[in-house]
Amino acid sequence: MRWLLTRWSAAISLLSKVDSPTALRALPEASLVSLCAELRQDIIDVCGRVGGHVGASLGAVELIVALHRVFKSPVDRIVFDVGHQAYAHKLLTGRAGRFGTLRQAGGIAPFLDAEESEHDAFAAGHACTAVSAALGIAHGKRLLAQPGQVVAVVGDGAMTGGLTFEGLNNAGYADVKLTVVLNDNEMSISRNVGAVSHLLRHEARAYFQSLGFTYIGPVDGHALGPLLEALAEARRALKSVVVHVMTEKGRGFSPAMADVATKGHAMGPYQWRDGKLVRARGQRTFSDAFAAALEQVMAADPRVVAVTPAMLEGSSLTALAARFPARVFDVGIAEQHAVTMSAGLARAGMRPVCCIYSTFLQRAYDQLVHDVALPKLPVIFAIDRAGLVGADGATHQGTFDLALLRNLPGFRVAAPADESELLAAFEYALTVQTPFALRFPRGTLPQVPAWLDEAPPWPRARWLTRHASAKLTFAGVGPLLWGALEAAKNQPWNVLDLRCVAPLDEEALYEASASNVVITLEEGTVEGGLGSAVLEWLSRHHLVPRTTCLGLPAERFIRHGDARTQRQMLGLDAAGLAATARRLLQEPR
Amino acid sequence: MRWLLTRWSAAISLLSKVDSPTALRALPEASLVSLCAELRQDIIDVCGRVGGHVGASLGAVELIVALHRVFKSPVDRIVFDVGHQAYAHKLLTGRAGRFGTLRQAGGIAPFLDAEESEHDAFAAGHACTAVSAALGIAHGKRLLAQPGQVVAVVGDGAMTGGLTFEGLNNAGYADVKLTVVLNDNEMSISRNVGAVSHLLRHEARAYFQSLGFTYIGPVDGHALGPLLEALAEARRALKSVVVHVMTEKGRGFSPAMADVATKGHAMGPYQWRDGKLVRARGQRTFSDAFAAALEQVMAADPRVVAVTPAMLEGSSLTALAARFPARVFDVGIAEQHAVTMSAGLARAGMRPVCCIYSTFLQRAYDQLVHDVALPKLPVIFAIDRAGLVGADGATHQGTFDLALLRNLPGFRVAAPADESELLAAFEYALTVQTPFALRFPRGTLPQVPAWLDEAPPWPRARWLTRHASAKLTFAGVGPLLWGALEAAKNQPWNVLDLRCVAPLDEEALYEASASNVVITLEEGTVEGGLGSAVLEWLSRHHLVPRTTCLGLPAERFIRHGDARTQRQMLGLDAAGLAATARRLLQEPR
Repeated sequence: MRWLLTRWSAAISLLSKVDSPTALRALPEASLVSLCAELRQDIIDVCGRVGGHVGASLGAVELIVALHRVFKSPVDRIVFDVGHQAYAHKLLTGRAGRFGTLRQAGGIAPFLDAEESEHDAFAAGHACTAVSAALGIAHGKRLLAQPGQVVAVVGDGAMTGGLTFEGLNNAGYADVKLTVVLNDNEMSISRNVGAVSHLLRHEARAYFQSLGFTYIGPVDGHALGPLLEALAEARRALKSVVVHVMTEKGRGFSPAMADVATKGHAMGPYQWRDGKLVRARGQRTFSDAFAAALEQVMAADPRVVAVTPAMLEGSSLTALAARFPARVFDVGIAEQHAVTMSAGLARAGMRPVCCIYSTFLQRAYDQLVHDVALPKLPVIFAIDRAGLVGADGATHQGTFDLALLRNLPGFRVAAPADESELLAAFEYALTVQTPFALRFPRGTLPQVPAWLDEAPPWPRARWLTRHASAKLTFAGVGPLLWGALEAAKNQPWNVLDLRCVAPLDEEALYEASASNVVITLEEGTVEGGLGSAVLEWLSRHHLVPRTTCLGLPAERFIRHGDARTQRQMLGLDAAGLAATARRLLQEPR
Repeated sequence: MRWLLTRWSAAISLLSKVDSPTALRALPEASLVSLCAELRQDIIDVCGRVGGHVGASLGAVELIVALHRVFKSPVDRIVFDVGHQAYAHKLLTGRAGRFGTLRQAGGIAPFLDAEESEHDAFAAGHACTAVSAALGIAHGKRLLAQPGQVVAVVGDGAMTGGLTFEGLNNAGYADVKLTVVLNDNEMSISRNVGAVSHLLRHEARAYFQSLGFTYIGPVDGHALGPLLEALAEARRALKSVVVHVMTEKGRGFSPAMADVATKGHAMGPYQWRDGKLVRARGQRTFSDAFAAALEQVMAADPRVVAVTPAMLEGSSLTALAARFPARVFDVGIAEQHAVTMSAGLARAGMRPVCCIYSTFLQRAYDQLVHDVALPKLPVIFAIDRAGLVGADGATHQGTFDLALLRNLPGFRVAAPADESELLAAFEYALTVQTPFALRFPRGTLPQVPAWLDEAPPWPRARWLTRHASAKLTFAGVGPLLWGALEAAKNQPWNVLDLRCVAPLDEEALYEASASNVVITLEEGTVEGGLGSAVLEWLSRHHLVPRTTCLGLPAERFIRHGDARTQRQMLGLDAAGLAATARRLLQEPR
């Protein structure tokens, strides 16, 4: 309860009075430095308890205070890119009292959320949307003759992303005014890569002027006086302007600043003990297991390379990049490029492994279709964070990948349930010369019962339990199967690990369809996913077991919260699965 | 047979000897001007007969000849962006004899195709992939220690696209050499928009240098001497280089050059009659009907705006843009931006209509999920070219849109079958405050039987025929239904026009499920599309009619050819549907 104590201590005196941007603007300028210190302390305390994007948010404290002093939200619209930099904005817009619930179920959202506050002009969890969204809002305001200006606050990491560039290209010469605040901490999640990072260091003025913007800066993003002045100048300007603000990621929190790789990008909960920061040691995850396998494979086969769009740490690839610097490509926030460059590598005879989160793979859907599936190139996609992601919430759920991939001609789609399956699937992927997707969830590796039979070779399905003439079969993919196995304990129910969503193991499915009841199981959308793949197969073979498809719901997005609890609430844990099974068996045919 | 006559006339004497880049390099330099004239004539003749991308290809004739003189394909890899500029490349790489079959079923592909020639280094039909693919190939060559250089040939239109920018950002400072040839005709399909077009006029050298490239140019793209010199300089360079080549779209073909809007971008077949060019007058299309409806709506409601990513002409929006210049946004080749800016417009209270082809909507899938569906913004998507597209082939088929959209929470997805439905669906879309997709095919509007009953209001499904206790029901969307109606003539079969894929009309489906046989029908992938939506619904309600799902196949991409013939071969025309229906009715249960 440390955060509560801190919150109500005498130190938090200014913030408790500031419940809106209007109240902020009423403060004397002299007190802003103290306000920033309070904001910073609150962010550090709450993130210590619940984890969060501490690094980016600490870097943007003064910038956000200055923005709300100069621009008058919500008449002026401030559009934050990603929103993980915007905790101070949350604290200053009426959410300080609830800020301790950050990222928890029912609590303050991890990113911005238009339903949470009228000051969240355009919510986002993926980078690079702000300029385009802000330009749309600006055009709308002009056409509707609404008052107010529009500001896009964009990190320098998003400057490598194609969407940002498309937005800038259209904004600079548009007949509406836009203020782009470039929050430049010289990092995306990790250090930036490519030409743009050089360019922002040495030629920022020329670059933005060539795109049609007036350039103001660079401004020290932690010096309130110059910041306020620069933003006021931007507000007065008649045409579109870029304000280049230099900030320090993790500012004011030594453990973040000491983290050379990511400057405390997304830290789990931490505690102070004897004056030192203590972080829970993580258990071995699917990402770790995959990265270890990839390292072995790369050591053995020089054709294997890894490509990641700014997810080096998240995908546990840091050690790999250190060992094989010429064969691990971090391309920055550039998902489309990551996929098409992987296709090019495959075309040259390499075996590229594109490591990407499920939610960000969405950015490269056309590249999957047009650059990989159509020319049948053997790119392996290691799709991390597939399924529920927990505290990162709605924007980051890995919901759609199975539905997106399994209907692409020639694509093989595997969804292993544990570490041994992950490794076997990867080995198999390397033996076939086709596009291959390997999706696995966020989080720790499951414990697998010791009594299980040895698995058949990929891509065959695997029976986890197999009774002759079982009345019910769970047929699914991924770690949800371990819940099904628990549900089936002491019951004459079968559990079939299909392992591949495309192609399906037809022999195993045929056996499964002999049950009265088939329950499909996946941590993804049923609609278009494994569930409908099984239904299509049954329909094609005129088989009619009673079939129920379980997965993530299609009628709504799942918000932030504890993934384990969410599975329980969705009926996807052992108890829920057992209850569904019993209900279906009791229903009259 | 004019093209055949021309081909074998004395004039085509050089080209007949050049069956490979090696043969081209053996020609004396003095004969290249004649060769270019022959290439140009062949392109004009063949496009006159079969239609094609005549404008871009005529502009690139000298450039392609020079490229193949200086670089030694296939050891050097020449990666063409899009490939619609590359007809001369096809003619020079062993395909001259078959070039008359361009875009026809079984004939030469409309774009490049790695299976067609070893000289097609990386095939593409969508713009912006070349730099990323070429960079991947260059990295692969280096790691495998293969000889040869890599060249990406990119149109200036693709310079606004995010993927190209992501590629340039990564290429300029990479440790491999790349030659980027900028084929600058100052157009994408239409005139370019935004900052980049200014930039390429006035600051190209500074821009590319800031991205880490050496800059050579501008070079007159129709003067062989300077072209050969510039490319040779690029080949000798040790680090990555941009060669800026100025070309004229439609060069040497007055009807293309006189077409101010697109310079003969994609021309249908044409003939010479009395010394004048005669083009078949097109019949009224779905695009025309939608554009006319949009014009009416825009005249009545000032909140309605249109956004298009460089498809102004293709979407029949030219007249609209002339009438409402402030409310029609052509954002250039920038699909992601088109969708996110539309979301911003909706956020500001406008009613944006984003007009885009099905195949290019794939470029903006994440923006559909993250920027439209998640915040539930009322953007209307007018999705043109949904289903089979004919001569444009595999890269351009509108196969996946229904599967992509119908499982996004809150998205409504309509697929009207004729003009009156299209208009009614659009009216309905404007009354609901949700994301809305309206998909319609390429091509002319169908004739609708006069005897049909009046349609119920949207979003209710519509019975085209309805017998009590019908043994079979066709339940589908889109113009394929008219074939089903013909198949059902004089049969006690029902035809149900579902009209919406999401949400489904459950009452109508319930009635349909009372038939022994249900045949779902859509011009798109069954897997994840309407077919699986119906199967999911039936399964959820434990209904078990014998169900067969017809649509485009999932195991392969459909190549170029006549769409009508392709429907016939896929069994999707009246005769095929009748045959399937009869077969299913005869099968034992």
